[in-house]
Parts: sequence; C-alpha cells; structure tokens
Amino acid sequence: MSVRPLLVVAGIGNATGTGGATARTFAKAGYRVALIARNVDYLNRLVEQITGAEGEAAAFPISEYTYSETSDVFDKIFAYQWPSPEKAELRVALWNVGVNVFGKFLGVAEKDIQSSLEVHVTAGFAFSRRVILAFKENVLDSLGSRGTLLFTGATASIRGNVITSAFSAGKHGIRALSQSLAKEFGKENIHIIIDGGILTDLSLTKVGAAAEAWKANPDVRLDTESLAKTFIFLTQQDRSAWTWELDLRPAHEKW
Amino acid sequence: MSVRPLLVVAGIGNATGTGGATARTFAKAGYRVALIARNVDYLNRLVEQITGAEGEAAAFPISEYTYSETSDVFDKIFAYQWPSPEKAELRVALWNVGVNVFGKFLGVAEKDIQSSLEVHVTAGFAFSRRVILAFKENVLDSLGSRGTLLFTGATASIRGNVITSAFSAGKHGIRALSQSLAKEFGKENIHIIIDGGILTDLSLTKVGAAAEAWKANPDVRLDTESLAKTFIFLTQQDRSAWTWELDLRPAHEKW
Amino acid sequence: MSVRPLLVVAGIGNATGTGGATARTFAKAGYRVALIARNVDYLNRLVEQITGAEGEAAAFPISEYTYSETSDVFDKIFAYQWPSPEKAELRVALWNVGVNVFGKFLGVAEKDIQSSLEVHVTAGFAFSRRVILAFKENVLDSLGSRGTLLFTGATASIRGNVITSAFSAGKHGIRALSQSLAKEFGKENIHIIIDGGILTDLSLTKVGAAAEAWKANPDVRLDTESLAKTFIFLTQQDRSAWTWELDLRPAHEKW
Amino acid sequence: MSVRPLLVVAGIGNATGTGGATARTFAKAGYRVALIARNVDYLNRLVEQITGAEGEAAAFPISEYTYSETSDVFDKIFAYQWPSPEKAELRVALWNVGVNVFGKFLGVAEKDIQSSLEVHVTAGFAFSRRVILAFKENVLDSLGSRGTLLFTGATASIRGNVITSAFSAGKHGIRALSQSLAKEFGKENIHIIIDGGILTDLSLTKVGAAAEAWKANPDVRLDTESLAKTFIFLTQQDRSAWTWELDLRPAHEKW
Repeated sequence: MSVRPLLVVAGIGNATGTGGATARTFAKAGYRVALIARNVDYLNRLVEQITGAEGEAAAFPISEYTYSETSDVFDKIFAYQWPSPEKAELRVALWNVGVNVFGKFLGVAEKDIQSSLEVHVTAGFAFSRRVILAFKENVLDSLGSRGTLLFTGATASIRGNVITSAFSAGKHGIRALSQSLAKEFGKENIHIIIDGGILTDLSLTKVGAAAEAWKANPDVRLDTESLAKTFIFLTQQDRSAWTWELDLRPAHEKW
Repeated sequence: MSVRPLLVVAGIGNATGTGGATARTFAKAGYRVALIARNVDYLNRLVEQITGAEGEAAAFPISEYTYSETSDVFDKIFAYQWPSPEKAELRVALWNVGVNVFGKFLGVAEKDIQSSLEVHVTAGFAFSRRVILAFKENVLDSLGSRGTLLFTGATASIRGNVITSAFSAGKHGIRALSQSLAKEFGKENIHIIIDGGILTDLSLTKVGAAAEAWKANPDVRLDTESLAKTFIFLTQQDRSAWTWELDLRPAHEKW
Repeated sequence: MSVRPLLVVAGIGNATGTGGATARTFAKAGYRVALIARNVDYLNRLVEQITGAEGEAAAFPISEYTYSETSDVFDKIFAYQWPSPEKAELRVALWNVGVNVFGKFLGVAEKDIQSSLEVHVTAGFAFSRRVILAFKENVLDSLGSRGTLLFTGATASIRGNVITSAFSAGKHGIRALSQSLAKEFGKENIHIIIDGGILTDLSLTKVGAAAEAWKANPDVRLDTESLAKTFIFLTQQDRSAWTWELDLRPAHEKW
Repeated sequence: MSVRPLLVVAGIGNATGTGGATARTFAKAGYRVALIARNVDYLNRLVEQITGAEGEAAAFPISEYTYSETSDVFDKIFAYQWPSPEKAELRVALWNVGVNVFGKFLGVAEKDIQSSLEVHVTAGFAFSRRVILAFKENVLDSLGSRGTLLFTGATASIRGNVITSAFSAGKHGIRALSQSLAKEFGKENIHIIIDGGILTDLSLTKVGAAAEAWKANPDVRLDTESLAKTFIFLTQQDRSAWTWELDLRPAHEKW
C-alpha cells in the first residue's frame, strides 16, 4: 500500500499565524494535515480552507492542553479514516501552542505561571513523546531522516524581559526540551528544530491600532508564509547538515 | 532600634551542599539565617550547627514546595522572635531548591515533569515575590542596594542534554525568571544573580563509588564553601558594577 | 538589456569543500560564478568543471589575501566579459577563506596570529566592503532583497578551544563583522548570514586515516552539497523572515 | 628570601579608568605594580600617585603595541630593581589595552581594522605568552593557583553592532583567546578571566557634555573602583570555583 506523509500541528490560534500558514503550506506540498486546537470554529474554518484548495485536513479539537489530553488526541489522529486510501505516515510535527501571559512581575498570578508551564512545557512533553514514538517506527526517507519535530520559539525563549517572566519561563522550558531531544534523537535520525520566530511575542504585547500598524508593515513583521516555507526547507535538509536552532528576523528588525 | 541583616535560604538538601555552606558562611558574617526545607532532621541539624558556632539560625520546615506553602512560610519568618532584640531585615535570599529527575526522555513520566516545573519554577516565583516585596521596603545600604536575590544555577540551566529533559526544563524556567527580575528590578536597586554552579547536576547524575571519588577530588568538584564565599562577595558589589550571571567552574573542569 | 545574477566566492580550497560545492550548486541554479582563490590549478579545474556542465564560471586568482588585493580583484570581476550578453549583477557572495593554524598556545608563532587575522578578518572587511557597495546599486528583487552576503563559520567562531587560539581569534573576528553588518545593512535590505558549519575545523584537525574515515562517514561529516543547498535556500528567504546565523550539524554529531 | 606579589597592567589610558583603578587597588593590597602604556605623562603620574600613597609602582613605557615590543617589555619588568629587597613574583596580570575605532562600516579604513587587530589581539597574544610562561614557574598559592590573567571585555566582545565593526572584531578576537587559554591552562592551575565590563564602549562612543553627564551618573556608569574590587575578589577565588567570564553592569543599565 502506498504511503502519504502526515503533518500534525498543535496550536493554530485564529488560523492566520504560524500554525495556519504551516498547515496550508504543507498541504499544498502534498501532506495530509491533522490539526489540534481548542477553538473549534477556527479549527473547522482552517480545515475547510485547506480541503477547499484540494488539500487533505482533519480537525482534532481538545478542551485543554493537559498532558493526558495532548497525548490521547494522537490515538484519534492515528485511527482517523482519510478519504484517500494511502497509509498516513507521521513525518512532520509542529508544536505551536502558546498562552498569552504578559505583565509586570508583581502582577503575575499563580495561575498565570501554572498555565504557562502546563501549556508550553508539560503538554509539549506529551506531544513530543507521541511524535517520537511514531517516528521511531518510520523507515529512513531518501534524505536519511525518520521525521522532523518543530517547535515555535520566540525571543522570550532565549531571553527573559520585563513583562515576560511567566511567558518566558514556559518558552525557556520548551527550548530546553528541544535541545535535550536534539541531543538524544539526532543519533536515531530524528530531526528536532526550534525556530527563533519573533512574531509571536512582539505582536502579542501590542494592542489595538499599534498591533494593526505593526502587522501591516512588511519591513518589521515576520511573515508566517515565509516561516512556513522555511519549515518546508528544514524538513528537506539532508541529515549531514541539520539545523537545531534557527533565528528568523525581519530584515529591518532591531535586535 | 538597631537592625540585623537576615538571610533566607530555601533548599538545604542534606546540609552539606550549597544551601548549607551559604547559611554557615553568612551566619559567620553576622547575618541571621532563616532556613526553609522539607527534611526536618537536616534542617534542625543545620540550625544546631550554626547556633553552636555562635550564629543565629531558625528552621522553617514546609511539607511541599507549592506556590502557597512557599509564599506562606514568609509570614512565619517575618513574625519570628529572634533571641537578640534587633530588628531582622531581609537583605539576602537564596533559592536553592531542586528536584532530581534524570533519565532518558521516553522514561520521563508526567509527574517528573510537573514536579520539576512546580518545585523549580512555580515555587521560585512565589519565593521571589515575597523576597522582592520585602526588599522594596528596605532603605538603600551603603553600596546602593536594597537587597540581593540569588538563584542556584547549573549547566542544565543553559543547556539541555540527553538525560536532563525534565530537570533542564525546570532550570531553564527559573533562569528565565532571574533574567526578567534582573531587568525589572535592577532599576529599583534590587540585585538579582544566578550562578552557573555545576556541582549539582554533575554530582547528582553520579552514584555510589563514582560519586564519592568525584566529590573527593578537589581539582574537579565545585567546593560549596568557595561558592558561599562568592555569594558573600556578590552581596557586597557596588551597584555600579553588578553581576547578573556568574559562571563558576573547578579549575580542571573540561567544558 | 537583461540581467543575470552573479555569485562571487572567495576561497575554494581543493574545490571539494564548501566553496566548490556552493559554486557548482549556484551555477546549476543559473548564476554566473566568479571564483577567487590562491591556487591557480584548483581554480582552473573548478572553472572547467562548471563550464563543462553548461555553467558559466571565471577564475580570479590572487597571490595573497591582503586588504588591497582582496579589494582590487573586484575591479577585474566587474570588468570581466562573460560569453553571454546579459549584464552580470552581483547578488550573492560567499567569504569562505580560511587559514589552518592549529596547535597549543605556547607553540603559536607571531606569524600564525597575524596570518589568521589578516586572512580571516582584514581581507574579510575588504571583501564585504566591495560586495556591499555593489549591493547598494541593486534594485530590490521579488523577495525584497538587494543581495546576500554569506560567511562560512565554524564551531571555533563561537568557542575558543585548546588548539584553536589563533584560528578562533580570526573566526571570532569575522563573526563579529557579520553581526555588525547584519545590524547596519538589514535596514537597507541587504541580507548577511553566517553559518555554523563545522566541517572545517573538525576535519582540519584530523589527519591521515582518521581524516579519511571521518569524511567517509555520512552520519558525522557535514556534507558540502547539503550546505550549498542551504545557501540556495537562504538567498531565497523572504525579507520578512531572514536568518542571520544558522547552526548546521550532522544528525549524529555530539555537541 | 621572601617574596612579594607583582601585578602587571598593560593599558592605563588617562589613569582614571579600569587600568588605573586596578593598579591603585592592588597596590593598596600589597602588590608591586608594573605599568605598561604608551603615554609617558599619564604613566608617570600614576606611578607618583601610587608611590605617594606608600605603594610600589614602576613605569614601563612602550612606543607601540606590536608583538615584539609587548613581549620585550617583560624583560625590563623582570630585570627591574625594586627599592625593597623581596623577590617580585608575577601573580596577576591585566590586559586592558584598547584602541578607539568607531564608525559606520563604509567609513572604516584598512588601518583602523589592522590597528584594532594588532593592538587588541596580536599584542594580547604576546602579553599572554609572557605572563603564562612566568606563571608556570610559580608554586601554587594557598588557594591552589599559579596566577591570574585578566582581560578587560566589553559588550562589543560578545556582540557586533552598527558602529563597532572594527572595534568588535578585535574584542571578539581577544575573547576567543581568553577562552582558549582558560581551557588549556585551567588544568595547570592558571586562572584566566574576562570581564564583561561595559564602561569602555558606551563611554567611548559618547562625546562632550553627553560623556560627562553619563560618567557623572552613578546609576548608569560602571565604576572602575568597583571593577578593581571585583578583580581582587577574582584573584582570591579558590580553584574549586573559578570564574572564566563575568558580566558586570550598573544596576540601572538596560540590556
């Protein structure tokens, strides 16, 4: 039986950001796309958008990014009956889940910290575990890889700042995981990557007109279609030259 | 009424490591020492050791490093009646709490991840909050500081590795917090420091005879008395030249 | 008059490494290739190899990587009459020049240090200056870029080690330049990139059978064809998501 | 015959900065001080200042920081007849030499690059060589050290920026050397340290009233007396907990 590659994306926000762009781009490139998210409306709309463009996509809503829910949703993904007959083989996965917890330190509540840690880190461990267990069953592809696991990073992944204490604690934690996985599973030809995309935190800390103006300026915003193209490229790297971490910045960004 | 500086240490292990050495060294330098830990026996033994050497120390046992317990124990510390009449003024605090969760990724259980995140990070937020609120009430000392908050780091704080996924996620998270705090509270003359001490994780991953041999070799182990002396120095830095992060390595360490 | 993109590569070693692979790959992708190097034999052989495969390439030998020679060779490149009639427009440049100076510190001679600094850094400034002046004359391409300047990095670019004091001083210097350029010329839509390729220093410190065995192992060596493909990708990044630094490692590399 | 420790400082500017403060502080702590610099007036004034305060200091002017001059001046230092009879034993050395080359990339001249590389890096190799050869003759002191070699760093040592291309290339180079030396000579109980002092580059890029205002603000400038006290501390670290790199920032610094 022939095989078709499967992409799993967790976290699609309102479907206009990194998760959505990645889903659309890989669908166009021939991947089936399994989408995990909390908001059922956005989820269904993105599925329609992809299937409307001749792609294959399916929605896997979950109520919370707990360890068990995040793990269990993979049972549904692997059991899913796709319309076309080929076997779906998980080859690429993107952990793009995030929670917006910004504010000065003394205003950060216990639940903000716990939410950032649970969603970014604990659920990220569950996601990674299911993905890696599936990758280990794969044969090597023509480039010598069993699969690619991507994490969405942010400037907050490498630097704490004034209003990011809770957010950054979670993003640092998942970056630590990505490096541990890279070191353990590179040897098994499983490719782990974290990007240093900066759209997320800059845009999330902007509101109202400032957010709109910023997003509309192609010189400073990080375009998610470009990011998705980069993800395609990274999945096609020969294993003799794999990237673990990649900074991506708009040309005019001051850093 | 005259004032006497107070050191709070959370995490003393078996009292032979960084927490214990710091407590003894600051006690000798004239500080009162409030000790927070889970193991009552080690806690009492360390208090006796310090008071037996003419120092002032008191034990504040807690059952778990939850957010609320870690926060609430400060009420007891601030209400404590010290034998001598001076007012106790919190000037230095050390967050030295750790949880040993080492092992290959696929063997890491959900509870290991949650434990690492709760103890290293969530409880660290609670500790920092109480310490900073107290520091804000202090007048500037002769060096221009309101107080010094220290975090025990590790190589795992800056690099994930094969057996450290859960441990490193927690240590990265607390390092992120330390940097956020440094950036927010430096301007208020509150000094935040994280050390890059490497005793912890190297020694924790060694067992039996290997651990003993390693600890007995002064060329490779990081001596906790030396670390404590460094902490004393850091609390005495003039605010015109403060350190946020400090790597500390044995001379013969290969890194 | 129509236009054809030009790639300039400085440093091709024996034409089997990064410089040679980059030249061949871009020639296949439709670029004219101007090759700068000291060894005329290798230079001519690489030109023949490319023109024999329907590509366009020309050799620009220089005697030493001094500031003035490195700068002046561009006059010849810009005056060169290519066989086909289109205007050649410099769009991509690769600074791949290196000098092998390895050994314990006390054995490093003055001339080793000066050679490493002159070849890696001083000549790199001259190269960058000519490239950037040319890029500034270009119109934006469809991705919003005026041109891409690439530097070959190495682990020694970010970490000094026991036998690399002179080599690493030069590689650190050129990395500093790449970052200064990225920050100054990103705003002018000129894309600056340094890779963290590690073939160079690992292989250079190996000799004889060890070098051959290492190069023959596809799990540990960094393949230069893969590197060249990555360079192609980087020149095609939309300016909304540019990379400044990229680590590239074999899947099985321990780091 | 009894022994007295010797500090060698290269680079004292106008004697009000890091070099001058270090010389005065170590002289007060009982060290003899040998001062290397180009400006004879400032050199003599600093010697008078120290000897006037009961310290021992001697001037060793050189005309340029070439490799050979920087090396040869040590012959004079080691042959110098100090007024008091004890043997002078080199125990601490500070490489504090710098050259102010700031400006946008296209305005950087060849001689600026060469000057930055020769003074910061090539001469720094010569200085390090003589210091390490002398340290190797020393017996271990009570803390297990044969000697401490300090380098003055700057933000430009770890990050290139818009106006620092030439300066930063030199400072990156010398940081690479410091790390190579730390890795090679730590095992011989020779302590290598680079500070991340930031007074230098920030103040050097300011002029006129802005420079004066900046230097006069104790909340933002890095005080050199504090830096010198830190150097004293670092020379007193037990070799079980040595620091290789130390960031030092004013409390109110934004970074």
